[in-house]
Amino acid sequence: MARIAVDMDEVIADALGEHIDRYNKNFNARVQRDDLIGRSLRQFVPATVACDVEKLVHTEDFFADLAVFPHAYDVLLKLSDENEIFIATAAMEVPLSFDAKYKWLLKHFPFISPMNFVFCGDKSILHADYLIDDNARHFERFKGTGILFDAPHNQHVTGYRRVKNWLEVAEIFS
Amino acid sequence: MARIAVDMDEVIADALGEHIDRYNKNFNARVQRDDLIGRSLRQFVPATVACDVEKLVHTEDFFADLAVFPHAYDVLLKLSDENEIFIATAAMEVPLSFDAKYKWLLKHFPFISPMNFVFCGDKSILHADYLIDDNARHFERFKGTGILFDAPHNQHVTGYRRVKNWLEVAEIFS
Repeated sequence: MARIAVDMDEVIADALGEHIDRYNKNFNARVQRDDLIGRSLRQFVPATVACDVEKLVHTEDFFADLAVFPHAYDVLLKLSDENEIFIATAAMEVPLSFDAKYKWLLKHFPFISPMNFVFCGDKSILHADYLIDDNARHFERFKGTGILFDAPHNQHVTGYRRVKNWLEVAEIFS
Repeated sequence: MARIAVDMDEVIADALGEHIDRYNKNFNARVQRDDLIGRSLRQFVPATVACDVEKLVHTEDFFADLAVFPHAYDVLLKLSDENEIFIATAAMEVPLSFDAKYKWLLKHFPFISPMNFVFCGDKSILHADYLIDDNARHFERFKGTGILFDAPHNQHVTGYRRVKNWLEVAEIFS
C-alpha cells in the first residue's frame, strides 16, 4: 500500500480550461490551450492585463464548476482500493477558494474522505510516497517521488517522470 | 533547524473557552474549564443536548474571535527565527471554518506565511519533526515527535511528552 498525494488544479480539475474560457469571454479573445506551451495564461496575455487575468481566478465561484479530467475518477477509485489517496491543493494562494474546492471534491470524488483533503501552500509539508502534480516546484523539497502531470505550462520541464493523462497514472501503479 | 507543526484549536487558539462561553449563554449554565477534566464539553453536557452543543461550533463566526493562548505569539515568533513553523489545523471537521481560521491566523500570527498553513483532517499526512497538539490521536501515525499540549480533555493521556503552556514549549527548543 502506498500513500499517493494528488494535486487538484490541472490534475483532477480543469482549472486552466475554465480560466481560458473566462479570459476569452472577458477580453474578447480566442486563446486555446495549445497557445500556452511552456507558459501560464498570465505570462501569455499582454502585460497590461496580466493582473486582471489573474483576478479572474480570485472569485468564489471559479472553482465550483470545474470539469473533471478524463479518467481521474475511475483511476482514483481503483487506486483507492489498495492505496491511501490524499488530495493536496495549494489553496492558500486563493483563500476564497476553500469552500468551493471542498464542495467540488465532495461532489466529484465522494469515495475520498474529507479527512484526506489537504489545503496547503508549501507542499513539502506532505508525508506521502508519491505526489502527482503539474507544478514541479512542489517536488524540490518533497521527500517522496514526484510524478509530473502533463500540462501546457510544464512542457519544458525535465527531471521528473511525466504522465500524459490518468491512464498513464494507472499504468504506474498497476 | 527543525520543522515544527503546531495545531490551532486548544494550542494557540482558545476554542474551548469560546465553546464554554457560548454553551453557558445558550443553555443558561455555569460550566468551567476545570469541570472538563478527561472529557470534552460534548461528553460533559446532558446527552439530550450533546448535538446542539456540538452545533455551536459549526457557525461561520465561531473561529473569528478566539483568544490567543498566553505566550503563543512571542514563543512562536522567536522559534520562527531558526525553525520552520507550520500551522496544521483539522479544519475538515468544520468546513465552515476555513475562511475564519485563515483570517484569524493572518491577524494574530502575521509572521507566519500562509504558505505554511495546512488545513487537513488526518494529520499523519504531515512531514515535520515535531507536532504540538492537544489530541494524542494525531500522534499515532505521525512519523516525527508528538508533544502533547495540556488541555482538560487530555489529562488522562499518557505516553507523550506533555507541555503545560507555551513557556514549556520554549524550554524544549531552547
